[in-house]
Amino acid sequence: MTTIPYELWNPQRPSPMPHHRYRPFHERVNVPSGDRSWPSARIERAPLWVPVDLRDGNQALAEPMDTPRKRRFFELLVAIGFKEIEVGYPSASRTDFDFVRHLVTSGAVPDDVTPVVFTPARPELIDRTFEAIAGLPRAVVHLYIATSPVWREVVLGRDRGEVSKTVRTAAEHMARLAGDAPGIRFQFSPETFNLTEPDFVLELCDSLTELWDASPDRPVTHNLPATVEIATPNVYADQIEYMHRHLARREAVILSVHPHNDRGTGVACAELAVLAGAQRVEGCLFGNGERTGNVDLVTLALNLYTQGVDPMVDLGDIDAVRETVEHCNRLPVHARHPYAGDLVHTAFSGTHQDAIGKGLAQHARTAAELGVPADKAPWTVPYLPIDPADIGRSYEAVIRVNSQSGKGGVAYLLRTRHGVDLPPRMRPDFSRVVQEATDDSGREATPKELYELFRTTYLTEGALRLHAWSAHEEAPGVHRFVCTLEADDRTGDYEGTGAGPLTAFVDALAGAGFPVEVLDVTENGTTAFAECRVNGTTTWGAGTGPGATVQAVLSAVNRAVR
Amino acid sequence: MTTIPYELWNPQRPSPMPHHRYRPFHERVNVPSGDRSWPSARIERAPLWVPVDLRDGNQALAEPMDTPRKRRFFELLVAIGFKEIEVGYPSASRTDFDFVRHLVTSGAVPDDVTPVVFTPARPELIDRTFEAIAGLPRAVVHLYIATSPVWREVVLGRDRGEVSKTVRTAAEHMARLAGDAPGIRFQFSPETFNLTEPDFVLELCDSLTELWDASPDRPVTHNLPATVEIATPNVYADQIEYMHRHLARREAVILSVHPHNDRGTGVACAELAVLAGAQRVEGCLFGNGERTGNVDLVTLALNLYTQGVDPMVDLGDIDAVRETVEHCNRLPVHARHPYAGDLVHTAFSGTHQDAIGKGLAQHARTAAELGVPADKAPWTVPYLPIDPADIGRSYEAVIRVNSQSGKGGVAYLLRTRHGVDLPPRMRPDFSRVVQEATDDSGREATPKELYELFRTTYLTEGALRLHAWSAHEEAPGVHRFVCTLEADDRTGDYEGTGAGPLTAFVDALAGAGFPVEVLDVTENGTTAFAECRVNGTTTWGAGTGPGATVQAVLSAVNRAVR
Repeated sequence: MTTIPYELWNPQRPSPMPHHRYRPFHERVNVPSGDRSWPSARIERAPLWVPVDLRDGNQALAEPMDTPRKRRFFELLVAIGFKEIEVGYPSASRTDFDFVRHLVTSGAVPDDVTPVVFTPARPELIDRTFEAIAGLPRAVVHLYIATSPVWREVVLGRDRGEVSKTVRTAAEHMARLAGDAPGIRFQFSPETFNLTEPDFVLELCDSLTELWDASPDRPVTHNLPATVEIATPNVYADQIEYMHRHLARREAVILSVHPHNDRGTGVACAELAVLAGAQRVEGCLFGNGERTGNVDLVTLALNLYTQGVDPMVDLGDIDAVRETVEHCNRLPVHARHPYAGDLVHTAFSGTHQDAIGKGLAQHARTAAELGVPADKAPWTVPYLPIDPADIGRSYEAVIRVNSQSGKGGVAYLLRTRHGVDLPPRMRPDFSRVVQEATDDSGREATPKELYELFRTTYLTEGALRLHAWSAHEEAPGVHRFVCTLEADDRTGDYEGTGAGPLTAFVDALAGAGFPVEVLDVTENGTTAFAECRVNGTTTWGAGTGPGATVQAVLSAVNRAVR
Repeated sequence: MTTIPYELWNPQRPSPMPHHRYRPFHERVNVPSGDRSWPSARIERAPLWVPVDLRDGNQALAEPMDTPRKRRFFELLVAIGFKEIEVGYPSASRTDFDFVRHLVTSGAVPDDVTPVVFTPARPELIDRTFEAIAGLPRAVVHLYIATSPVWREVVLGRDRGEVSKTVRTAAEHMARLAGDAPGIRFQFSPETFNLTEPDFVLELCDSLTELWDASPDRPVTHNLPATVEIATPNVYADQIEYMHRHLARREAVILSVHPHNDRGTGVACAELAVLAGAQRVEGCLFGNGERTGNVDLVTLALNLYTQGVDPMVDLGDIDAVRETVEHCNRLPVHARHPYAGDLVHTAFSGTHQDAIGKGLAQHARTAAELGVPADKAPWTVPYLPIDPADIGRSYEAVIRVNSQSGKGGVAYLLRTRHGVDLPPRMRPDFSRVVQEATDDSGREATPKELYELFRTTYLTEGALRLHAWSAHEEAPGVHRFVCTLEADDRTGDYEGTGAGPLTAFVDALAGAGFPVEVLDVTENGTTAFAECRVNGTTTWGAGTGPGATVQAVLSAVNRAVR
């Protein structure tokens, strides 16, 4: 189809930044995309999640975790339900080695959890790695080497053949050290996979699948990292699908991915990779890790959850998870972090608050119709992609009020936090009062401040004051109202009659020189609300306690007089 | 192909969380995906970026911006080079209205910048919106209404026909108010587009294209928000491509997207949408906005940049941009935020530091070969997807050292920050010293602390002290070394001969009971380094100043003795 010529509608100008220094990914990697089926796939079950917080996450911290912090993190991961956990890079440092030994000797590893240890392709470091896991009934030994052209040339100084040879030598050494131990499995990561020639990665992986004699009973894990993100996430999906389709002994391979987040698309890379055939995802909680972080496993799991797919991990108390992770990493989770941030279940804007208020009311009705508790009913509340209660969050922060807010949010907070249920037609009146106050202050108004504003607006004494009063039914349908009224420092006794006590009061007010027409009176709980017309203007009042309706009318008169 | 049965390799257990409360997106929206071409597309030029910080971003802040903050933000956006800027929702609050008036009356809007104002589909609020922009030579009036089933039923209480009618009435009112003013253009947002029946959105958009009589000269903007993310980003791309292919008068439409980030995939949604035909992207700087935020325009622009595509905005001083945004929003940018976070151009781990060090050296060589300055040479340094200098960052934070670090990073910091260029073979020796110190402290070692550690390890007095000394060439090729040595509180005069001053010193040392074999001595700048063998062990020393090589050998002996 024809679109408008770019120059005609896009007035942007060339940037002074030297973009010519960078090459597009397709000039660096030839990604086969022949048989692409991932765009039509759906994720219908959780992959195997493998947290690498204790290794990849830890090595990106200014202050790496000490053993107590690592132990606490490990226990959190076990409690959440992770079954395969990378616990360290034991040949890299004394603390890493000591921590793995600590896990082994303290019996901290449950029977159904498999630790993973990371090692470079050097025999003496592989020896040290096996020393670290001696005594563990189950472990995955994870071999890595950088495979892409830039890394081969600049970092390793080896060509493809030499890299292959180094990897095979290391893999043979691992196989020897593992011997017949049935609990030891192998993992291979061609680091910078996403920058490597696909045929070379395939050759390396297939050679190890064969060397380690992988089988469905003792599968090999081939883990394909987006070590540094370099392209839109569909390209990574193409790369993964190519591997998924071409790996030898596919039935003996667990295809794993390890996305980072340099382009802010780590979550997307993981999801599209799973669509493309990945079975296992390595990442960190809340996206800690080198530079911009590893992919966030919490977001991935809850993304499945909100699609009705069992995440296979328990994130029912997300604040407890967050607290431990923040303690261990000494890095905060951002206020806008998906699912876990302080502001992500919050609406300040009027239209959003209105929609959420209506949605929550509809949700309560649906639950009642289905005869189930609200926390079991299907969830489709506008602007809240997850029920905050499902992850242990309260509804307290869902509606917060400032100058951007409207009547819906204000009414919601008064009702839920102070039991004051404003009639719908009164809400714009009080909302104007709130908006003036927040416009002036520039700040958020807390529920307490809102109630205080409600009280000073409607419930405090005005120019016209009602002292002693009484009402009684003189005859059937005839009420008499007797009172003492004070206005402008003059006090007088007045009385009136009417079909009810309120009309009798209105009659008395008229006698005192305050004519008022009562349009509507409602009572919710202990509070009454009156919509009145005074001098041609509609005005609202409220009252509480005995004679609440009388007080509400008096309040409306005072609002009009003021 | 055959893969391993899920149960066989995935030991994860069902979560106790009630995932059955949620429905997958494909049960909620029928997304046509017949003619999908976006997975094979590439982004070859920047879309029109439209920051909505002053409206969508602002309404998500606990403390909305006051006029001075909004003005400062607006000027930042202009300085970066944005040409279309959403400036507010003038009918929503006094502050929003006043700010738009402020822009009009103060002449703050440059000739090539078009402000956008946001309005709901209500005639009296449209009136107020036009009041706000009166006097602006150019503006986009942006009409929105929620269109998806849940919103129609729960929030608006209107069916498809009623929503259509409301929109058309509003659009006609806008057309009347705009009259013939050539600078006023129109934008429409079917809010919750991604949850709406595609045929309904198409019907609404096409009806407005016709009603407003859009043409290539005066195009309409149809903006399709992922108001709340609900599916993997490929689904949004399918939705956008469907619209791109089916919109009427396509040549008169600017197809725009507005992703949010509830699933952490806002950046991916925007990128895949551009692949699918979107020409314009609305978002906020650093991803501020409702809940998890709007898509981050800074990340999107720099993602293009690092692919060699001109971003058409200037982010050459990202810290200045970040500082202003943090001031205005009163929210921090996270340490791991792509491109802008404090930690994202930093490596702590040894392997990464080694690779970066080699990469930077290779980069310098390439620049020299090409005869261009380093900041003009093509950039392919491992682990650094962007040259920090291109966005105004220094290299200071690129390498930071703690217990996870290795010899490469330590050597890099000593060389670049203190001019001490350790010989490659000496690096493991000093690296062990650093690792012991950081293992013990658990903390990062600053460059200053590293130098201090180097000084106390190699350059301070040891058990063996050299007092007065001299060396002279007695005969061609015969040197004599005379000195006073102190060890264990005993002081004595010694002398030795050799083919050079250093071998003569070694001879004197042997006489004093300290036999040492010098394996290698190098000098870099004012520092000398000696690799020696003492009692069968290789040991390293360093010395500075006059007689640096002598001091280096003495230092090596002292290291061995210690």
